[in-house]
Amino acid sequence: MHIIGIDIGATNTRFVLLKDLVVLRSRKISTPKTKKEIIEVLEKNIREIAIKPGLSKIFGIGIGVPGPLNKKRDLILNPPNLIGLKNCALPEIIEKDLNIKTKIENDANCFILAEARTGVGKGAEIVVGITLGSGLGSGIVVGDRIYQGFFGNAGEIGHMTIKFDGLKCSCGSIGCFEEYASQKYIKRRTRISAQELNKLAVKGDKSAQKIWQEFGRNLGIGLANIINILDPEVIVIGGGISGANKFFMKSARKEIQKRVLSPISKKNVKIKITKFKGFAGAIGATLLFNHYEKSSCF
Amino acid sequence: MHIIGIDIGATNTRFVLLKDLVVLRSRKISTPKTKKEIIEVLEKNIREIAIKPGLSKIFGIGIGVPGPLNKKRDLILNPPNLIGLKNCALPEIIEKDLNIKTKIENDANCFILAEARTGVGKGAEIVVGITLGSGLGSGIVVGDRIYQGFFGNAGEIGHMTIKFDGLKCSCGSIGCFEEYASQKYIKRRTRISAQELNKLAVKGDKSAQKIWQEFGRNLGIGLANIINILDPEVIVIGGGISGANKFFMKSARKEIQKRVLSPISKKNVKIKITKFKGFAGAIGATLLFNHYEKSSCF
Repeated sequence: MHIIGIDIGATNTRFVLLKDLVVLRSRKISTPKTKKEIIEVLEKNIREIAIKPGLSKIFGIGIGVPGPLNKKRDLILNPPNLIGLKNCALPEIIEKDLNIKTKIENDANCFILAEARTGVGKGAEIVVGITLGSGLGSGIVVGDRIYQGFFGNAGEIGHMTIKFDGLKCSCGSIGCFEEYASQKYIKRRTRISAQELNKLAVKGDKSAQKIWQEFGRNLGIGLANIINILDPEVIVIGGGISGANKFFMKSARKEIQKRVLSPISKKNVKIKITKFKGFAGAIGATLLFNHYEKSSCF
Repeated sequence: MHIIGIDIGATNTRFVLLKDLVVLRSRKISTPKTKKEIIEVLEKNIREIAIKPGLSKIFGIGIGVPGPLNKKRDLILNPPNLIGLKNCALPEIIEKDLNIKTKIENDANCFILAEARTGVGKGAEIVVGITLGSGLGSGIVVGDRIYQGFFGNAGEIGHMTIKFDGLKCSCGSIGCFEEYASQKYIKRRTRISAQELNKLAVKGDKSAQKIWQEFGRNLGIGLANIINILDPEVIVIGGGISGANKFFMKSARKEIQKRVLSPISKKNVKIKITKFKGFAGAIGATLLFNHYEKSSCF
């Protein structure tokens, strides 16, 4: 059974073609800005990646998209980091154009579904995933299922307030976690990208390493909130910035020890770094086709 | 079947005697400070409230206590607002002294269990309860069951950071939600109690009403975080301070509209005020005896 998984991020869009849960082909492209361009680029790349075995043999297309979404999962609402997709009924458009069953889910939910079923969260009862990239995404898996919330938008942890009189967020709110623990923070603080800051830190640049420690402190504040509220067994850190974890996780862990109430939870919660190299979200999107049953395939 | 429910708060302890889910007797006393005094007072009042039908006819004793607790629910860990109970194996002590099966649960979990099964949250799929009192307690019910978290301490929403460089909390952390939306905030801000501030507001005192608006803004910031993370169907506000809701809920709702990402969630989430007059926690504690099955009695 061939399934295509797609992960539309604010910066990059990733595609995978899976057959019987083995990745046959993958690619990464830049994400365009407008709705029209995004749909054109999606359909062009779907056709190309499906050239063998042919489009008619594709069982389904799973797409991770920036949230929030409606509960029925047929509409993207108002994603602050990719406004081109505002009010876009993406599954209907793709299904109509390509005649293949298409499902969408919050991108961070796809990431954590992959981690909880096949990655470093495998076997854990309650898993929270955090993706550190252009923004900060997150998803919650309880008992192998995505916890979607009653209206379908649980897990918007990036928009939790951690400093109510702090920085203004692209969502319109103030002091969101995302403003302090994503690419946005690094760019504002240093005028360079997280990738460049990581290179400097690797070279031994002390001031770069210090900024990563600050970043880790901010991340730890938000993770402590998650532990106080959800008390998960495992937290998985992914996204492009997670590669710099050796420079920020020590200060993040220190902040967790300071801010979590339960001595048992803060001692025992496992915080793990993703082992997938960027394609977790796209692989997780293919799992939407057996989302509501425990996968026996992995 | 007679069951005794007890709710040990930082200020008051409440007792109820239920038979076939009807409250036969209730009482409220001040909570002493030391472990020895607390246990003496608990056992004295249990004996008195059980005098008819007699201690031997009591099926069980459920006790709501300040968290955090261990997962097995036989030990109170380090409650910041009632340090007398630190490391106290309360169920074992009461069972040994009185020979009656005794269970403990986080007090806010007892409150929300009562609300979700029998109160204003009845029938809802995901219910979050917030108790505004000496501290700020909270509990999460999903599908009629308490969401305890993997290590047993989910729902410590009062110790979520909402201002990371803010006020120092009694738990040792900084900027906890509880410091901004409980009796502590009112006392620090006004030097009088929430009850006195409410009386002033009722009499039309403009500056008292303004402080309640501030309190509501703070409460709204924390509630917005809960909606962003858990996306519940209903939030129930209880605790001693909830009586002043007409002075603080308007500004709380305004803050929720500003800070919640999903337009669907912020439009549809129901925020309700408890109808129980202070005894929800004690009544909820009696429900621990059928905690893991849906009650058919209500």
